[in-house]
Amino acid sequence: MDLAEMGKRASAVKYRLQSLTTEEKNRALKHAAQALRDHESEILAANAQDLQRGRDNGMHPGLLDRLKLDSARITAMAQGLEQVAALPDPVGECLESFDRPVGLHIEKCRVPLGVIGIIYESRPNVTADAFALCFKAGNAVILKGGSDALTSNQAIAEVLRQALADCGIDSDAIQLITDTDRAVTMKFMRLKEYVDVLIPRGGAGLIRTVVENSTIPVIETGTGNCHIYVDKDADLDMAVPIIINAKTQRIGVCNACESLVIHEAVREALLPRLKEALEEKKVEIRGDERVRSVIPGAVPATEEDYGREYLDYIISMKTVDSLEEAIEHINRYSTHHSESIITADPVAAERFLNGVDAACVYVNASTRFTDGFEFGFGAEIGISTQKLHARGPMGLRELTSYKYRITGSGQVRE
Amino acid sequence: MDLAEMGKRASAVKYRLQSLTTEEKNRALKHAAQALRDHESEILAANAQDLQRGRDNGMHPGLLDRLKLDSARITAMAQGLEQVAALPDPVGECLESFDRPVGLHIEKCRVPLGVIGIIYESRPNVTADAFALCFKAGNAVILKGGSDALTSNQAIAEVLRQALADCGIDSDAIQLITDTDRAVTMKFMRLKEYVDVLIPRGGAGLIRTVVENSTIPVIETGTGNCHIYVDKDADLDMAVPIIINAKTQRIGVCNACESLVIHEAVREALLPRLKEALEEKKVEIRGDERVRSVIPGAVPATEEDYGREYLDYIISMKTVDSLEEAIEHINRYSTHHSESIITADPVAAERFLNGVDAACVYVNASTRFTDGFEFGFGAEIGISTQKLHARGPMGLRELTSYKYRITGSGQVRE
Repeated sequence: MDLAEMGKRASAVKYRLQSLTTEEKNRALKHAAQALRDHESEILAANAQDLQRGRDNGMHPGLLDRLKLDSARITAMAQGLEQVAALPDPVGECLESFDRPVGLHIEKCRVPLGVIGIIYESRPNVTADAFALCFKAGNAVILKGGSDALTSNQAIAEVLRQALADCGIDSDAIQLITDTDRAVTMKFMRLKEYVDVLIPRGGAGLIRTVVENSTIPVIETGTGNCHIYVDKDADLDMAVPIIINAKTQRIGVCNACESLVIHEAVREALLPRLKEALEEKKVEIRGDERVRSVIPGAVPATEEDYGREYLDYIISMKTVDSLEEAIEHINRYSTHHSESIITADPVAAERFLNGVDAACVYVNASTRFTDGFEFGFGAEIGISTQKLHARGPMGLRELTSYKYRITGSGQVRE
Repeated sequence: MDLAEMGKRASAVKYRLQSLTTEEKNRALKHAAQALRDHESEILAANAQDLQRGRDNGMHPGLLDRLKLDSARITAMAQGLEQVAALPDPVGECLESFDRPVGLHIEKCRVPLGVIGIIYESRPNVTADAFALCFKAGNAVILKGGSDALTSNQAIAEVLRQALADCGIDSDAIQLITDTDRAVTMKFMRLKEYVDVLIPRGGAGLIRTVVENSTIPVIETGTGNCHIYVDKDADLDMAVPIIINAKTQRIGVCNACESLVIHEAVREALLPRLKEALEEKKVEIRGDERVRSVIPGAVPATEEDYGREYLDYIISMKTVDSLEEAIEHINRYSTHHSESIITADPVAAERFLNGVDAACVYVNASTRFTDGFEFGFGAEIGISTQKLHARGPMGLRELTSYKYRITGSGQVRE
């Protein structure tokens, strides 16, 4: 289908979606969850085609694994829909209300964003997850998944569309772009007339392409060059497990630690212990000269290392002589995602919290907690690394806007 | 100066601005206000150069008037700075806080956006106004004014920079781009590495250019094709003065009414009275067939008329047979700025408030109230017509973002 036609359909349905009751939305989400379970065999058959094409094209085993669906993953998708159904509905919430001397009563109320575009990469579960969050927040969604997962995405979207129709809801609440031509994706990024917000979910390359080309307002997600700073007053017994957790608990994620900043005063005490723990996890260390004087085997760290999001078993290390230098280094190389200080000094903690420019700034905790579920939002569409609209984990509330409702009795402006 | 250098300076100063106390910011704003008064003669001399160049180039008298400064306008600029000093400081406000089962304490706190870019047209007072709002909200600002007002803008910016320096604050908190080459403006729109948000202030053409070309997140402001819908249950004694006010109280502004939607049931009663009142104000009427059957002299309205923001003594009129048709018509042609229903029926009012997709939706009041001062925000950087980040009048709070501050005691993720 033509993109403009999809845009028109999404625009038409968005006004109906915003007036659905919470009950109607929840019923549809639960029905869609059951439909995913009921159509497991069709979805797996479609996925098998994608996997076969991937293998034929020599796809990397890691990517094949991301692409692969099985019964457990389909169940998880269905449960995800049910979890979203259980979350409170953000739409309609009155954020504030006030009266003006002229006699106007003004209410600021949450409304859906309208039409959300999502461009994403390999994992087919995003098709269901993104739909559920957008739908619960009253939005229509137009999805553009990766071409590798096209057949799987089509099967999932078809099940979801039918489930909506079964509940008397216009199935155009979710539409999937099936044209894999790159020019179509570029055109999608400029479908400003119909799409209110565009959210890219994927690697740094995808996000850069969207930011460079979109005329639709974008929420940037994802890239995280996250630091942990070990202050001179750090409890090293606390520092080591936090660093190991943030670096190695899951390496391919945006909230993993990529770089360590170490105060000179703890360098010689910390590094030998840390080296041992990191070596056990097979993490390569890239350090400055002072780091290498304690860890002779470490690779020399370059400027480029300090700016890298490795998403791998590699960590860079930088020595500083003061908290200020640490903050300055972090603000320079950070992607403004998640940064942590390990310190027993509340004054240093406060200065770090204030001085570091990031969505999430931690004291004495792993950066791995930057996550919609860990924050208690119950779900997550991504982690925003921009400052406009939403910052950090984005749940249902972050998929809404607001409007002012103003009631008068004939007021005119003098 | 090179744009990248300006970006670097703004980025460097933003971290110092965010830690200024409210008192320090207010003192600087008041000092800057006095400095504008003290340097009135230099500013007027600079403005005289711009005016002379404008006259030499055959500038339209209306634009010359917008460009012109005099003692009263400089006083107003100074007072504007003092008013912003008197407003509450949004920075640091704790928006919410919560504890997680794992023992993390999470606070969501307001922080400045960072570096704000503003691209604006003729009026030189924007140089002072925009600086004041951005500065009070803790942001550095890079301004690009119209080339017509360059000399005036330079004089004002110089006074403000010196005033900051007098107060021990880095004068790069405000920087003005003086290169009038269009390529420089285009490059400014892509200075994403240093600029967090870009706000265009001006006509539809400027805003379109920025949206098309910027890689920086943009807040769209301004264009308003605002409607008033006169419902079948409208009090016509209320409707006529509201329409006259919204259309004619000030015609060149974004919250002026451009189009009227009339329920068939009140068409014949309303239009003769309205015609008389509009004719008195010399407003041209462009109507559909049913409107013209009551106002034979009216110009036939085209599809294009319904989508036009006239900013002139012209109004389009459309007859509908139901509230639903009115809502549909408005959502189709609206720029989602401000829309009003005149009705005595609370059910119709509620359906209009819910169904119309706009930043500000009114019942029984003029659309002219969509304004930061009228809303009690004390100031305004513009009216956002997008749904991301801020919608409607934007004051100091809308020039901030937030960060999560998370305090733990050694938590790692399982």
